[in-house]
Amino acid sequence: MSQDVRFDLPFSTPVSEHLEYARARHLRWVWDMGLVRSRAGFDEYRSWDLPQAAARTYPYASAEDMVVLMNWFSLAFLFDDQFDAGRPDRADVIADVARELIATPLRPAGGTPRVVCPITVAWAQVWEHLSDGMSLTWQTRFAASWGRFLVAHCEEVDLAARGLAGTLGLDEYTAFRRRTVGIHHSIDAGERSRGFEVPARAMAHPLMERMRDLAADTIGFMNDIHSFERERRRGDGHNLIAVLHRERGCSWEEAAAEAYRMTTACLDEYLELEARVPRMCDELALDADERERVDKGVQAIQHWIGGNYEWALTSGRYAASKEGEVATAEQAGRGSVDDLLTV
Amino acid sequence: MSQDVRFDLPFSTPVSEHLEYARARHLRWVWDMGLVRSRAGFDEYRSWDLPQAAARTYPYASAEDMVVLMNWFSLAFLFDDQFDAGRPDRADVIADVARELIATPLRPAGGTPRVVCPITVAWAQVWEHLSDGMSLTWQTRFAASWGRFLVAHCEEVDLAARGLAGTLGLDEYTAFRRRTVGIHHSIDAGERSRGFEVPARAMAHPLMERMRDLAADTIGFMNDIHSFERERRRGDGHNLIAVLHRERGCSWEEAAAEAYRMTTACLDEYLELEARVPRMCDELALDADERERVDKGVQAIQHWIGGNYEWALTSGRYAASKEGEVATAEQAGRGSVDDLLTV
Repeated sequence: MSQDVRFDLPFSTPVSEHLEYARARHLRWVWDMGLVRSRAGFDEYRSWDLPQAAARTYPYASAEDMVVLMNWFSLAFLFDDQFDAGRPDRADVIADVARELIATPLRPAGGTPRVVCPITVAWAQVWEHLSDGMSLTWQTRFAASWGRFLVAHCEEVDLAARGLAGTLGLDEYTAFRRRTVGIHHSIDAGERSRGFEVPARAMAHPLMERMRDLAADTIGFMNDIHSFERERRRGDGHNLIAVLHRERGCSWEEAAAEAYRMTTACLDEYLELEARVPRMCDELALDADERERVDKGVQAIQHWIGGNYEWALTSGRYAASKEGEVATAEQAGRGSVDDLLTV
Repeated sequence: MSQDVRFDLPFSTPVSEHLEYARARHLRWVWDMGLVRSRAGFDEYRSWDLPQAAARTYPYASAEDMVVLMNWFSLAFLFDDQFDAGRPDRADVIADVARELIATPLRPAGGTPRVVCPITVAWAQVWEHLSDGMSLTWQTRFAASWGRFLVAHCEEVDLAARGLAGTLGLDEYTAFRRRTVGIHHSIDAGERSRGFEVPARAMAHPLMERMRDLAADTIGFMNDIHSFERERRRGDGHNLIAVLHRERGCSWEEAAAEAYRMTTACLDEYLELEARVPRMCDELALDADERERVDKGVQAIQHWIGGNYEWALTSGRYAASKEGEVATAEQAGRGSVDDLLTV
């Protein structure tokens, strides 16, 4: 049910023409890198259709870059699912791997992970390609955005491991959600996918900072709505609908309606700020080339809001019901059929 | 001998008027936080005179900020000394702590460390103060600079633990030294110490990036020369003089002379680039306020080159001979009398 919820977006976003070419190569890579280790895991992974997500969020990437972006999505989503509520001791292993993932963009590209498992080996390879040709300033921004996301992910896992996942109040949850959704680095990657960079002073402007935060909130809340069934199955209390239901003592329907209202409020505020971008460019006295790069930066945000939304409506990841090994795993509190944190 | 080597700097750098005020408060803090745990450790720590280093590298910090900057120096230098060549298994504990130190600036300030020991607890407290009032852009830059340094530090410890410290060639060593010296984040902190920020587009300019790298090379090489006796005592092969001695098969005197020549070459190139800063400001069409912030940014680099140099000439850290517990610890391959990685 929840996965069908529609939002009214005032912009449409394109889909890469390289989707099918890149999908085939990507799926082979996922097997070769050991990111799926069983038939059931592979079938489940394919049902998520992450290639579509990448093709929608990075529509202008080259064919080769598109494969790498899909590869990146696979390791990020599969890592996100490695927590097992039945094994709270896994929190330490997850923290170890997360910290290795943080370290990778802080090393010269092409280095070897210190913590070796399919996820970290895959990320070292992806980062070498993803960082190629980008400035130190961009690499610094990406590394910090990515690091903030992974640190927040560890906190989420730690809370769940201690049985505290369902204890955050609404304000605390919304601040936390902005950090766990992982949108800032995803938008940063939009620059790499199209071979441009937003001028440093535009990126440092409060308007752009606020737009990025609002995009993160919008996408995080949309994701909470679309993934509600999956997260309920897994007993995951980190979901806006669950937080509202608990904090307000309201029905699930009322909580879902309030989550919808909050999401559209974020989206509306984002759109209001987007309309002020030309004024910001005037204020900063940007030249034509710089303005074009700001425009592309705004498009990168739109591609994420729109592309992620379109993908989530149909992805098997958020399907209302599951069966077989995947359902068994989810009912046991796991997000993944395969263990990807050991060699 | 080596500690006396003089360089001819064409600028002089001031010393904070708050040195003595801050030193007294800092030394109490070091005890209270458990960063020294023995009388011998405290005597050794005091002999380093890190308060002087902070007062020279951040001469315009307020009295309260000066205490915090000294506190920061203490945890960074003491962490640097935690490796024990006699216990290669310590490399994993050091990596754990380093990764926690990397994570701290990626969390909202005021958070609790996941890995708890005197070093990480001290850093969480220092970071809360150090980040206060600084922009997201600055925090991002600092977090990445700091993270790159700590990742490189782990690599250094890993090499030593595997007995490979003395295997890097000259080119490899000089690239590595730029990462292990930890100057980029030290210069970043100069902005915090004086309450300003270098404009984002000036910081992203290749000239400023190259100046920062050359300052790191200059200071790293100077440090290798001044700390040569200490590192030889500890059996530390990561020293420019040792690398030159080995790679060129020359005498220690010749190696030291060549290290000196390389250091002055870096300094000269830095100074040449510094002279081009006004042209860069013209090119970027900076206004008067922005130019002033660029000038202060250049001064922050000078304060580090000059202040670190003046301090190293007299610091007990690099004294040619030691006795008592410190000498025993150093002869055993340790850098520190106290273990600061356990609670």
